[in-house]
Amino acid sequence: MNRRLLILTQGHARTLKAKTAVSLLRYRPDQVVAVLDPDQAGQTAGEVFGVGGDIPVIGSLDQAQDANTLLIGIATPGGVLPDVIRPAILEAIGKGLNIESGLHAFLCDDPEIQQAAQAAGVLLNDVRKNDERDVAQRNDINDACLRIQTVGNDCSVGKMVVAIELADGMRSADRDAVFVATGQTGIMIQGSGIPIDCVVADFINGAAEKLVLQHQHHQVMVIEGQASLVHPRYSSVTLGLLHGCLPHGLIMCYELGRENVYGMEHLTIPPLGEIIRLYEQAAAPGHPCKVIGIAINTRHVTDSTKIKDERKRIRDTFGLPVCDVIRHGPGDLVQAVLEHETKLRSQGAPT
Amino acid sequence: MNRRLLILTQGHARTLKAKTAVSLLRYRPDQVVAVLDPDQAGQTAGEVFGVGGDIPVIGSLDQAQDANTLLIGIATPGGVLPDVIRPAILEAIGKGLNIESGLHAFLCDDPEIQQAAQAAGVLLNDVRKNDERDVAQRNDINDACLRIQTVGNDCSVGKMVVAIELADGMRSADRDAVFVATGQTGIMIQGSGIPIDCVVADFINGAAEKLVLQHQHHQVMVIEGQASLVHPRYSSVTLGLLHGCLPHGLIMCYELGRENVYGMEHLTIPPLGEIIRLYEQAAAPGHPCKVIGIAINTRHVTDSTKIKDERKRIRDTFGLPVCDVIRHGPGDLVQAVLEHETKLRSQGAPT
Repeated sequence: MNRRLLILTQGHARTLKAKTAVSLLRYRPDQVVAVLDPDQAGQTAGEVFGVGGDIPVIGSLDQAQDANTLLIGIATPGGVLPDVIRPAILEAIGKGLNIESGLHAFLCDDPEIQQAAQAAGVLLNDVRKNDERDVAQRNDINDACLRIQTVGNDCSVGKMVVAIELADGMRSADRDAVFVATGQTGIMIQGSGIPIDCVVADFINGAAEKLVLQHQHHQVMVIEGQASLVHPRYSSVTLGLLHGCLPHGLIMCYELGRENVYGMEHLTIPPLGEIIRLYEQAAAPGHPCKVIGIAINTRHVTDSTKIKDERKRIRDTFGLPVCDVIRHGPGDLVQAVLEHETKLRSQGAPT
Repeated sequence: MNRRLLILTQGHARTLKAKTAVSLLRYRPDQVVAVLDPDQAGQTAGEVFGVGGDIPVIGSLDQAQDANTLLIGIATPGGVLPDVIRPAILEAIGKGLNIESGLHAFLCDDPEIQQAAQAAGVLLNDVRKNDERDVAQRNDINDACLRIQTVGNDCSVGKMVVAIELADGMRSADRDAVFVATGQTGIMIQGSGIPIDCVVADFINGAAEKLVLQHQHHQVMVIEGQASLVHPRYSSVTLGLLHGCLPHGLIMCYELGRENVYGMEHLTIPPLGEIIRLYEQAAAPGHPCKVIGIAINTRHVTDSTKIKDERKRIRDTFGLPVCDVIRHGPGDLVQAVLEHETKLRSQGAPT
C-alpha cells in the first residue's frame, strides 16, 4: 500500500523538533498530502518549513480526506510521546488512518492507543522498534566498498541530510552509491535501515556492522551518523556506529551559530578542532580514518557574507573542503570523496 | 527470602565464561549451597574455581536439596541461552527452584521456560531486564562525592573485582565508600545497580548518570566499568559509562598475557599506553580525568618473578601504582585514590 501521509507537527512546526517533518517534506513530498498543525493552518509547507512547496498546512483531520497514514513529524528529547499530540493520534485512528512513529515510546506499548488501533483495524508502525541481538564480528567486511560516514559536533546539525545529498551526488558522479539510514527519519525516507539509537547497548556495534554487511555490494555507502562523540546524552550511540561501521572517511557536520548543546543549553559544545581530533583518535585503534570534508548547516543564517566568511575560515583552519549541501549543493564533498577514493585505491584499498 | 544458591556452570567451570560463578563464590560464599557441573562433580569449588573453599561441586540437582535458587553462573557472548543448560533449568524449575539469570536472552521471554515456571509457581529473575528511559541531564551532580571508575583494555579482565576490592579498601581507610554495580554479576552480588549493557542505546549515559545521583551521598563511589573503549563489540557501553558517570579518576585494568580480544582472537588488543590515552582524550571534553592507578590481573600466571617484573615494568612505564588486587591486596590503589582525593581537595573539589 502506498503511503499518503498526513504529517503531525502540532505546535512544533517552527522548531528543530520538527526535523522529521522537514525531512519527509524535503525528500518524499510526493507522499505527503498535508501537514497537521493548527497553529500554522492556512499556510503552505513551503512557507512554514521552507520545503514542501504548496503542500497545505491544515488545522483539522477532516481537511485531509486523502491521507491513509498519520506520521508523527516531531522528535522529542528521550523520544517520549507528548501529551499534546495524543488526542490527534486517537482521532486519526478513529478515522481509519495508520500511524507511523519514530518515538522511543512505542505506540504499540501504549494501552489506550493500542486498543483504539485494534478496534479501528489500523496499523501502528513503530519505526524504532527492533530486535537486534547480533554482536559485531569484524569478519567478512569488504573493503572494495568505500564507506563514508557523516559525524557531527551535536544532534540535529544535518548528518542525515548531508548523507542523503552526498549519496545522491556520488550517483551523479557515476558511482553506485547508497545512503544507509541509521535513524528513524532516515528509515522513513529510505524504507530500510536500523534505528541504532534504540538498539540494546551490547548490540549497537553489531547492528552497525550488519548495515555494512547488507550494503557492501555497492561501490560506495554513505552512512548516516548519529549524535556526537562529545554529546552528554548520546555519545555511546556515536561510538558504536564508528566502531561498527569502520568508515574509510568522515564528513564533519556542524551548524553555524550553534554554541551550546541542543536541548542542554547550560553546556558548551567543544571547539570543532577538538572534536575532529577525538573522532580520529577514537577510530584509530580499530580502523584509522580521517575527516575528509566539512558540512556547514546555515539554515538559520541569512547574511550571505557571514556564510562566505565562515566557509573560508573553516577551509583555511582545517585545510578541507567545506559547503552547505542545501545552499551550495554537495559538489565540494563529492569531490573530496572522489579524491579520497583515488588515494585509497593507490594504496590498495578500497580496490 | 534468603537466597540459597545452586550455581550452574555446566561444562564451562574452567573457562572465563564462568566469571559469574567465580564472583559469587568469591563474594557471596555464604549464600552458595553447591555448584552444578557434572564434568567437575566430586571436587570442591576451591579446587575447581580457586575460590569457594569446601562448597561442593555436584553432578545432579538431587544432591542440593537445600537450594532454593538456581543461578546461571556463566556469561555467554551476546548473552544467549546455550542449549546445553536448558534441561538443567527446566529440571530445577520442576523441583521448585527459582531461577536467577544475567543473560540477555530473558528467561521470562522464553515460552517453554516461562510456562514451566508458571506451572511450578517459581520466580524467574532476569537481572539484565530493565526499563531505563532517562536521558542524562548533567545537573545536580555533587562533586563532594569522589567518583572513581574502573576501566579496561578488554572484557573479563577484572574491572568488577577491582571496583569491589577498592571500595572495601577505601572503607578500611575510614572512608564512606560504596561499590556501584553496572553489570549483571555485580548486581547479583550487591543487590542493586543497573545492567548498563542492556539499556536501550539513547539511555545508556542517562542510566549511568542515575547511578551517580543515587549514590552521591557517600564520600566515595567506585563504579564498575564495562568492556573497553577499543572493544569492537561493546565500546559504546564503555563510552556511555564514562560520559554518564563523569569520574574524577580511572583505574586501568588488564590481564597479564592477554594479547588478543577475548572471544575475537583474530584481533589484537592495542598497546596499554594508547588505550590509557584514549580514555583520557574521551573524558576530556566533558569532565577531564586521568588514569591514577593500574590493576594487573595475574590469575593465569604462576611464575612470581614474571609477575614482579611486569609490575615493575608497568610502574616504570606509566609512573603509576600497580597491583593485582587479589594477589597483593588493593593497598597501592587505595593509596592512589587517597592521594588523588587530597590533590583534588587542594584544588577545591571534591570538597
